[in-house]
Amino acid sequence: MRHPLTRELHDLLERGRDRQLRLAVTGLSRSGKTAFLTSLVNQLRHAGLEARLDLLPAAREGRLLGARRVAQQDLGVPRFPYDQAMSALDATPPRWPEPTRGISELRLVIRYRPSRRRLLGGETRELTLDLFDYPGEWLLDLPLLGHDYLSWSQAQQPTIGCERAGLFAVWHDAVSTLDPASEVDEARLAEIAEHYAAGLRAAREAGFSDLQPGRFLLPGELAGAPVLQFFPLPGIAEADRDTLAALPAQSLYATLARRFDHYLQHIVKPFYREHFRRFDRQIVLVDVLGALNAGPERFEDLSRALANLMQSFDYGRRSLLSRLFAPRIDRLAIAATKADHVTPEQHARLVGLLEALLAEPLKDLRFADVPVRALSLASIRATEAREVEQRGETLPALRGTTLAGEEVLMFPGEVPNRLPDAAFWARQGFTFTAFRPLPREGGALPHIRLDSALDWLIGDKLT
Amino acid sequence: MRHPLTRELHDLLERGRDRQLRLAVTGLSRSGKTAFLTSLVNQLRHAGLEARLDLLPAAREGRLLGARRVAQQDLGVPRFPYDQAMSALDATPPRWPEPTRGISELRLVIRYRPSRRRLLGGETRELTLDLFDYPGEWLLDLPLLGHDYLSWSQAQQPTIGCERAGLFAVWHDAVSTLDPASEVDEARLAEIAEHYAAGLRAAREAGFSDLQPGRFLLPGELAGAPVLQFFPLPGIAEADRDTLAALPAQSLYATLARRFDHYLQHIVKPFYREHFRRFDRQIVLVDVLGALNAGPERFEDLSRALANLMQSFDYGRRSLLSRLFAPRIDRLAIAATKADHVTPEQHARLVGLLEALLAEPLKDLRFADVPVRALSLASIRATEAREVEQRGETLPALRGTTLAGEEVLMFPGEVPNRLPDAAFWARQGFTFTAFRPLPREGGALPHIRLDSALDWLIGDKLT
Repeated sequence: MRHPLTRELHDLLERGRDRQLRLAVTGLSRSGKTAFLTSLVNQLRHAGLEARLDLLPAAREGRLLGARRVAQQDLGVPRFPYDQAMSALDATPPRWPEPTRGISELRLVIRYRPSRRRLLGGETRELTLDLFDYPGEWLLDLPLLGHDYLSWSQAQQPTIGCERAGLFAVWHDAVSTLDPASEVDEARLAEIAEHYAAGLRAAREAGFSDLQPGRFLLPGELAGAPVLQFFPLPGIAEADRDTLAALPAQSLYATLARRFDHYLQHIVKPFYREHFRRFDRQIVLVDVLGALNAGPERFEDLSRALANLMQSFDYGRRSLLSRLFAPRIDRLAIAATKADHVTPEQHARLVGLLEALLAEPLKDLRFADVPVRALSLASIRATEAREVEQRGETLPALRGTTLAGEEVLMFPGEVPNRLPDAAFWARQGFTFTAFRPLPREGGALPHIRLDSALDWLIGDKLT
Repeated sequence: MRHPLTRELHDLLERGRDRQLRLAVTGLSRSGKTAFLTSLVNQLRHAGLEARLDLLPAAREGRLLGARRVAQQDLGVPRFPYDQAMSALDATPPRWPEPTRGISELRLVIRYRPSRRRLLGGETRELTLDLFDYPGEWLLDLPLLGHDYLSWSQAQQPTIGCERAGLFAVWHDAVSTLDPASEVDEARLAEIAEHYAAGLRAAREAGFSDLQPGRFLLPGELAGAPVLQFFPLPGIAEADRDTLAALPAQSLYATLARRFDHYLQHIVKPFYREHFRRFDRQIVLVDVLGALNAGPERFEDLSRALANLMQSFDYGRRSLLSRLFAPRIDRLAIAATKADHVTPEQHARLVGLLEALLAEPLKDLRFADVPVRALSLASIRATEAREVEQRGETLPALRGTTLAGEEVLMFPGEVPNRLPDAAFWARQGFTFTAFRPLPREGGALPHIRLDSALDWLIGDKLT
């Protein structure tokens, strides 16, 4: 016979039995973080009623009873603005939610009935799900931890590719006049640092992704602080290490090196220490289609950025991260978002392309034994799939409303299922059109395979 | 032979030799902090050349050689935007600089020759002057440290005065429906907290000053974080203390109390610990004329706000602050700014009014043996004094250009030299007009008695 447990013992056991999960959502800017998190919360709140979550067994079997928001744990982290996002989506016409800046958090309590094989009575159970949303740009700073200022200066080649070089031209002209040994001129340094930050901002505006240091793009309260006023010195080499190290504290070189170190200690490390290493699971969103649309230079740049970003999840025994912070992420998802912006028969190719794009990081992750899954999804559908007849043939098409309000019926093109070659770029075979979200009818937001992502990320906790 | 010293050791030695001084500038918003700091830097940079600093002995005696900006110490604090401020002042037509938000810092090295009696050779000396600028609103939070959530709730009467009450009406209606013992509804709490913050913002817009908690008005990166989502509960009383303390953690009362504590620990205390307690000297700027112009309710409100603010400088042995942080400010100035907005013969009355307004805090400061001086000044002149003939009488007047670009010649009225009484308010004897800054001719900015403030704040270090 089972004995009733005291409340305290019960709580302890719940924790021991994995009743709490910290799930983080990230991606570079415009990858669709806000839409994903909004839809995720929306689906779980409407689970058991309007939400269509057939790929999540607990929902399919009618065991998922719903979710409610409760008070989050960390009072100093902004709450994820779910209500504002829903208001935007429910507006006439529907709008995409405002993107979040920085980190935000939301806590849900999910109610479910255990599956029959684990059922030991008629009672329901609860899973506390802490959701976090943070800029993927922050992860681009991880490689900095493996550098000192000298080696970072050498590793940084912000002028890779001729278009990027153009965006950094003003900075480059200015920095090339500097002598590392000269006494630092504060005002001039601030000016050149601003040229560098302006280059990063222009590069982001132009669709580039591999931008370091990440915090220069979202300075927040540190705008104007010296810790965000440094840049690589292009001319210096490893052979000069001893000479450079001997320069006085007031020299340009020593000043830049001090700021670089401060950035690592006070900006990069605290994020990993206070947030990252506490996440249990992670989904990384990637706007593959946007990059495909933007041409070869940006596509390669995205590939480089993702390789950098994924290093944060490669915590094999010898990785920088596991030596520093011992993170505990035990399951990772990588999702190509905006799948509703191509016709359904292209979805498998989209996953193929995502896997090709991440081939090297995925190899490392599998070698490090990190369970990872790649998928494609649309957090909030913006189109409907249609078929059109053309010269006797039936062709797939999308129907949607553009951001400008125009209703269109179109075929955006074929997604290559491996890395696009010169022939693809020469054809320019793909046209990405941005659509408005579809209006919500009644309860849950329309989506594609968000339930599949949910199954991978939390499904095993709902059995 | 001299050996190079590390920056820290150098700073330590300079401090020991009185060669370093940390001077902080504060004041409520619109009191003229940015103009003061801009002009102070400008005067010191032009000392010995164009600057007119006759009230500063080192300058009058030709011993002040000038100042240059050097790298500041704390890399995580934004640099005071001196160049941007000067660009605004040098624009055509001249504009007032953008107000700063949050804390900023600037380090000057001042070069001077010691006065004859201390001269031991022909050499020059240097004084390192660290300048800090921070919102006076942050000091309004000091009294919170003397409260717990219950006593703060009772002490807060955001609805004092009928006009303020109107601004908080939406919040007041919402909060009166709440039951402290009920389980907290996160979304509803966030909504009511937003009504409270909106009330504070509206009150500031309407010219009120005594607004707590100060960080609600400048949330920065904490926008949307639970730590900025609390408010006083009007209905609770000391007699309920035990009952309230026994409420469960999920109750509304316990949630609000937890956030209040978090605000004290993570927002109020760090400012005092990391910045305030390191300042050597302080000037507090007060826009007395603006308040005089705004009528009795706002004038009384300013008086209350200043009394609160000044508590931060009353570090007699038994004060809250000295128990917590042991600050070391050894000299304090209180300045009525914008003195150029009244005719010169009113300046003495302006100081009289400032002293009357601060009568109680000044008594406490003198009792605590803190050297303090009250003065009136104009950091950057916006008017010229004139005389006009009227019916055979010579009357003082001001000539200036309004913000709208209109040239005027006017007499703004008499400043009362003690607290204005009902008769003054009934007459509404004072009209404050905002003027454009005067264009700079060549070097230094035109000012009134900025040199007098400088003498009190740094003069003794230049002998």
